Amino acid sequence: MRLLGKEEIENIAIGAALLGTGGGGDPYIGKLMALQAIEEHGPIRLLDPEEVPDDALIVPSAMMGAPTVMIEKVPNGEEAIAAFKSLEEYLGKEIYATMPIEAGGINSLLPLALAATLGLPVIDADGMGRAFPELQMVTFYLEGVSATPMVLSDEKKNSLLLNTIDSVWAERIARTATIEMGGSVMLAIYPMEGRVVKQSAIKNILSLEEKIGAEIRAAKKENENPVDRILGLTAGRVLFQGKVTDINRKTQDGFAKGTATIEGLNDNKNEECKLHFQNEHLLAQVDGRTVCVTPDLITVLDSDTGMPITTEGLRYGSRCTVIGMPCDPKWRTEKGIEVTGPRYFGYDLDFQPLEELHLVKEEI
Amino acid sequence: MRLLGKEEIENIAIGAALLGTGGGGDPYIGKLMALQAIEEHGPIRLLDPEEVPDDALIVPSAMMGAPTVMIEKVPNGEEAIAAFKSLEEYLGKEIYATMPIEAGGINSLLPLALAATLGLPVIDADGMGRAFPELQMVTFYLEGVSATPMVLSDEKKNSLLLNTIDSVWAERIARTATIEMGGSVMLAIYPMEGRVVKQSAIKNILSLEEKIGAEIRAAKKENENPVDRILGLTAGRVLFQGKVTDINRKTQDGFAKGTATIEGLNDNKNEECKLHFQNEHLLAQVDGRTVCVTPDLITVLDSDTGMPITTEGLRYGSRCTVIGMPCDPKWRTEKGIEVTGPRYFGYDLDFQPLEELHLVKEEI
Repeated sequence: MRLLGKEEIENIAIGAALLGTGGGGDPYIGKLMALQAIEEHGPIRLLDPEEVPDDALIVPSAMMGAPTVMIEKVPNGEEAIAAFKSLEEYLGKEIYATMPIEAGGINSLLPLALAATLGLPVIDADGMGRAFPELQMVTFYLEGVSATPMVLSDEKKNSLLLNTIDSVWAERIARTATIEMGGSVMLAIYPMEGRVVKQSAIKNILSLEEKIGAEIRAAKKENENPVDRILGLTAGRVLFQGKVTDINRKTQDGFAKGTATIEGLNDNKNEECKLHFQNEHLLAQVDGRTVCVTPDLITVLDSDTGMPITTEGLRYGSRCTVIGMPCDPKWRTEKGIEVTGPRYFGYDLDFQPLEELHLVKEEI
Repeated sequence: MRLLGKEEIENIAIGAALLGTGGGGDPYIGKLMALQAIEEHGPIRLLDPEEVPDDALIVPSAMMGAPTVMIEKVPNGEEAIAAFKSLEEYLGKEIYATMPIEAGGINSLLPLALAATLGLPVIDADGMGRAFPELQMVTFYLEGVSATPMVLSDEKKNSLLLNTIDSVWAERIARTATIEMGGSVMLAIYPMEGRVVKQSAIKNILSLEEKIGAEIRAAKKENENPVDRILGLTAGRVLFQGKVTDINRKTQDGFAKGTATIEGLNDNKNEECKLHFQNEHLLAQVDGRTVCVTPDLITVLDSDTGMPITTEGLRYGSRCTVIGMPCDPKWRTEKGIEVTGPRYFGYDLDFQPLEELHLVKEEI
């Protein structure tokens, strides 16, 4: 157990946005929520997964909806508490701790804010090790853990308790309800025992986010380029550098879907990188050649500051560096690829690990 | 208290379809469900509202969805029990009785089938005295009773518990969830105490349905036209007689919406009647002149048999008689008109009682 204060929150917010691969919500809003909760209630206890009792009830918390909507509809914190309390009452057992289900500016920080407010610890783990757009895209799902009973709450105080036959149905019903409820809601989801967290979660991810954020901030202070430090921590590679020349973005079916085009500037002046996203970046191609694809991570960094840019933060003219990072090995299994691989999202190509795609380029 | 056996069910199914004004579900399916439940579990106890203890917990049951979908997706009975049991558990109090929320081929009969299966009594009352397409269109809503906590269950065993700030939000969220869940679901809804039923329900409506059905069947047996008998029981009037020449029907936003055109045959050969429906018939016009409009009741009868025809049962060439019937006085209040009047459904006209519209015609 260690305590997270304001400094740690600043770092986690940056690292979470980076692993959020363009989605997971605006890091500024997430950070403010967590900082305010710490201000009021004191620092947050962060537990290593191994410290959690096997029979303790763990309930992850998250925001669901298109990030484009989340920005205009800032949560007031009450929704998350309502969802959490309502699920606790339904399960008839005290909740021992919460945790994120994904990495992202809001979705890594919201559980921290909630934990501070409720005086609960947070477990240093999540269910993706990155961000993904759908609820069944968590390592818990790969191990057969059910998303339900889960609770959705909105800022108007509407609340839904779902019991579905599987997590794909949970996603379908929750997604349409979310759209009707104004485009974003708070979730208390994937209730599970401590033993299941130890077995199926992606561990020490908040600590990794914190390290990434700390390196980026240190580099900034020292006027250094942070990209190399990031690649060192994440085993990542630079995929492309250039200037955003086109963004095509729409909010559809509760998702922010679109493409971004980045043109090369110097050595790669005649090259073009295309990013395809659905809340998160899912496919990066350079001149039509795939350089990184889901479930591996694609993140856009500001070329000057090294700060991660969310898909909704992409602006025409921005100088940016696109990096790719290998996903957790749990995602590279047959089931993992089936649930989060390119074919699930409608791209007619097989998953290839970032490392291999990179090799191909070097061979050419 | 009296017992309802097979004979009573046969009658109620017909009368319910007639008051269902074209909606409320297919009477054949509803009847089969109730008859089968009686076959297995014995007759159903029907309680007069005055017999219900003030503090007893009453939970109405209903099917939600477009009637066009209900026909293809016959409920197996398990969904309704699941919804009912789940709400009972959530409320932590034993349910004393159930009742319909609306009149209709399925929605009057489903609570009877459920009651037989669970060994519960049914209250001789509902919340509309007719059928309406939306969940807040019940007399309980006029008196401030909340639709939630409510439970939706589908045949796949998905279930949702809703707690909303008002019944309009319950309608919105439940409707989109219903569409996602396949177009129809079972509801346990508007939980309330016995005292509230006595105050806000439309009373003795199942008995009225039974009387109407008995008259239609008796007339058939005696080879008489039942229309006059129906008008006598419902204070109704004949609006038009003719032949269906056009039907325009689509399932949209979870509703069966459309228009039907009926052309006159003998005395009224050059006249045309147009019916506008959204699950239920809402507006009847003869040569562009309004002859009956929601919340007053519009029902289409088979001209030969006097049997009510649902909107999805309307066929090109059918000989039919359109009748109008005054709604319950609760609907003719300012709030009642606001919730169920023509302007709510997008028709640019004020509500006028059937009796007055009829007078106008006689003056001309």
